[in-house]
Amino acid sequence: MPARPSTDRPTDVLVVGAGLAGLPVAWELARRGASVRVVDRGAPGGATSRVAAGMLAPVTETEPDDPGHLAVGRAGLERWPAFAAALHAASGIEVPLHAAGTLALARDRDEAEALGRFADVCARFALPVERLLPSAVRRLEPALAPTLRGALAIPGDAAVDPRVVVRALTGALAGHGVEVVRAGVERLLVDGRGTSRASPADEQRAGARRAPRATGVALDDGRVLRAGAVVLATGAWSVDGVPDTARVPVRPVKGQLLVLRDPSGPGLLERVLRFGTGYVVPRGDGRYVLGATTEERGFDLATTAWALHDLLRDGYELVPGLLDLEVEETLAGLRPTTPDALPAIGPAAGVDALWWATGHHRNGVLLAPLTGAVLAEQIAGAGSSGEPILDGARVAGLVAPARFAVAPDDPTPAVPPAPPTPRPTVPEDARA
Amino acid sequence: MPARPSTDRPTDVLVVGAGLAGLPVAWELARRGASVRVVDRGAPGGATSRVAAGMLAPVTETEPDDPGHLAVGRAGLERWPAFAAALHAASGIEVPLHAAGTLALARDRDEAEALGRFADVCARFALPVERLLPSAVRRLEPALAPTLRGALAIPGDAAVDPRVVVRALTGALAGHGVEVVRAGVERLLVDGRGTSRASPADEQRAGARRAPRATGVALDDGRVLRAGAVVLATGAWSVDGVPDTARVPVRPVKGQLLVLRDPSGPGLLERVLRFGTGYVVPRGDGRYVLGATTEERGFDLATTAWALHDLLRDGYELVPGLLDLEVEETLAGLRPTTPDALPAIGPAAGVDALWWATGHHRNGVLLAPLTGAVLAEQIAGAGSSGEPILDGARVAGLVAPARFAVAPDDPTPAVPPAPPTPRPTVPEDARA
Repeated sequence: MPARPSTDRPTDVLVVGAGLAGLPVAWELARRGASVRVVDRGAPGGATSRVAAGMLAPVTETEPDDPGHLAVGRAGLERWPAFAAALHAASGIEVPLHAAGTLALARDRDEAEALGRFADVCARFALPVERLLPSAVRRLEPALAPTLRGALAIPGDAAVDPRVVVRALTGALAGHGVEVVRAGVERLLVDGRGTSRASPADEQRAGARRAPRATGVALDDGRVLRAGAVVLATGAWSVDGVPDTARVPVRPVKGQLLVLRDPSGPGLLERVLRFGTGYVVPRGDGRYVLGATTEERGFDLATTAWALHDLLRDGYELVPGLLDLEVEETLAGLRPTTPDALPAIGPAAGVDALWWATGHHRNGVLLAPLTGAVLAEQIAGAGSSGEPILDGARVAGLVAPARFAVAPDDPTPAVPPAPPTPRPTVPEDARA
Repeated sequence: MPARPSTDRPTDVLVVGAGLAGLPVAWELARRGASVRVVDRGAPGGATSRVAAGMLAPVTETEPDDPGHLAVGRAGLERWPAFAAALHAASGIEVPLHAAGTLALARDRDEAEALGRFADVCARFALPVERLLPSAVRRLEPALAPTLRGALAIPGDAAVDPRVVVRALTGALAGHGVEVVRAGVERLLVDGRGTSRASPADEQRAGARRAPRATGVALDDGRVLRAGAVVLATGAWSVDGVPDTARVPVRPVKGQLLVLRDPSGPGLLERVLRFGTGYVVPRGDGRYVLGATTEERGFDLATTAWALHDLLRDGYELVPGLLDLEVEETLAGLRPTTPDALPAIGPAAGVDALWWATGHHRNGVLLAPLTGAVLAEQIAGAGSSGEPILDGARVAGLVAPARFAVAPDDPTPAVPPAPPTPRPTVPEDARA
């Protein structure tokens, strides 16, 4: 691998962003024979991916009362076992899927009623959940507080350690000779238009003659990376130079969480626990991720006193033994969130050779294999993979970036702009 | 300054430990003309001193119902203004004394009763404290919770930032050409006895012929540092090779605390707040130290979930606005604590040229100037300083290490061994 990328040797594809959206895209393309380069200002997975809890939970973590979210989430989970196996084979790094399932828990009457409504929704969509009495759920997880009011068992959910996934993907990319360039991107390079500040009408007039085309990026160290196609997998962050028609409205939704560690090893909890807007995810090695806040605070990444207080108090109410653990890390990350909380995966509107892989909100880890497969099929051509995407056409439609495109004569995008507060998660925090 | 200390150029004094016990001793000796060297395995102040809250609080932080503790603590506070001024002059680094006083607060009836008893004790010792109604105390500190039950104003207390003190002392030492050697100490070197494992009786028989004498230390990198006298300022840690007769029983008492930061700057609180066993210390720059736990956990330094939870909950009960702050640091330190919770400052029993400066428990910062002055006077000779120590003879007697000496024919030390739990602080936490 050269120390500095050759600026006169373009690759087939350039992926901007080395997180759990960009890395699987790069790997799936490299597996299909494309020449790929990845660029990120930081270490792979170093921004948001390392902060993720890693739940693979299409039922509890997405919006099961919304058929679209459920379809995307289940398509994501469906791909995980084969993805983890292939990644292990390619990198030599095992990516364990902790598949002990999820318990959705109620601490009080309001939460118990919300859990009942959630169970009704699951029944309507034929999702396999099971109502459990507090006594039964405490036989499954004896560390739970005796004050527990009710529980649902969701057997299909799983969890992975996102940092292990990043390591395995980085290793797999190295095996294909894919270079990960560590540099900031100054701007996207687009041929066939005037300036990036051109109005949509100007863009359209230009497009009538020749569609603008992404050709690479300029780095803030002065280098230029050219490619036949550019994938923007930049999470909550934006890249200068993207034509207005192609933009996807993504905002950062801050999440804070704690990594706790049991010095005596695993055993306190086996299953993922969900309660209100919170969760506890066992890593299987004595570590437990306790999260998460949902905050509209722009790009602020500070750890705050109220977040630690509320997370620890909520965790303690549910599993008193959590307070006996050591605090290994306090973390904050920025979920990239679109107005409809679904990701934007697919071709950018109105610009050739430009692709989006962003907007994964709370589901970046769950959707990592799907993101890679959808984009690789679209970029490298249908039929390039032996593994068909579950309900592929429908899923690809649901996540198509074009749904946010601004029509030249209509400034209203296809979906309304970001709401002032994020969509509630399910089960709803009835105490909020 | 040489990169490696010359092993054949002994200094007058070698100080082991570059914390807030050792550094002032080294500085006071250097000011008096002695050649001094300091050795520490870590950065100056990097172990316990950087974790200290920095309260200069002989009334609330020591044991005001114990005349001994009160005398030592007040002698410590007495020296601080001149010490800070001299340190500023010597180093160019200002050491601000935040002297807005302390408010001792009660959150409930039990704490209010404990506060009343504390006020009675203060009256008996003619300590100037003032009972305040909740309405009056909230006029002083509007951020206090409306649920406050009672308060005492203690006007004399102050606070400093221990890290600033360490920086100033390090600068002052550099001005005297004092070398701070960064290396671990393998063992104390003592002439005039057989082995360090000799029994007290053996030691005494040897001593009858010739008193053992400290001559320096062997470092774990193989070097030897020789000196005319050795000061052990090693906090909760011990040094191999100290003869049994000279040992001081010090155990680590763990304290955890949080440093919070107000991104909008200072102004939330002016005064030091005390409540139960907790405190909030404003640093004057928008930072607030919220502490502290008192734990008998050996040398464990882990941050624990219950400590963060309890500190934040207690802080929130007293000052709800604390939860709006950012968490700048979570810290844990080890207080070096003797059986009577008073420090050991003075000559080691039964070994010539060996001195102790340890056992400062919760009062290392308060007693830093006193520690330096007492030892410098004793080592460099009485009258070597122009500033007499307040009630010097009495204070020196109270902190004399010889009170722990094991008599050759009596295995019982002068004070009983460490209790299983630490002494309660005052005001007592009536809710414990």
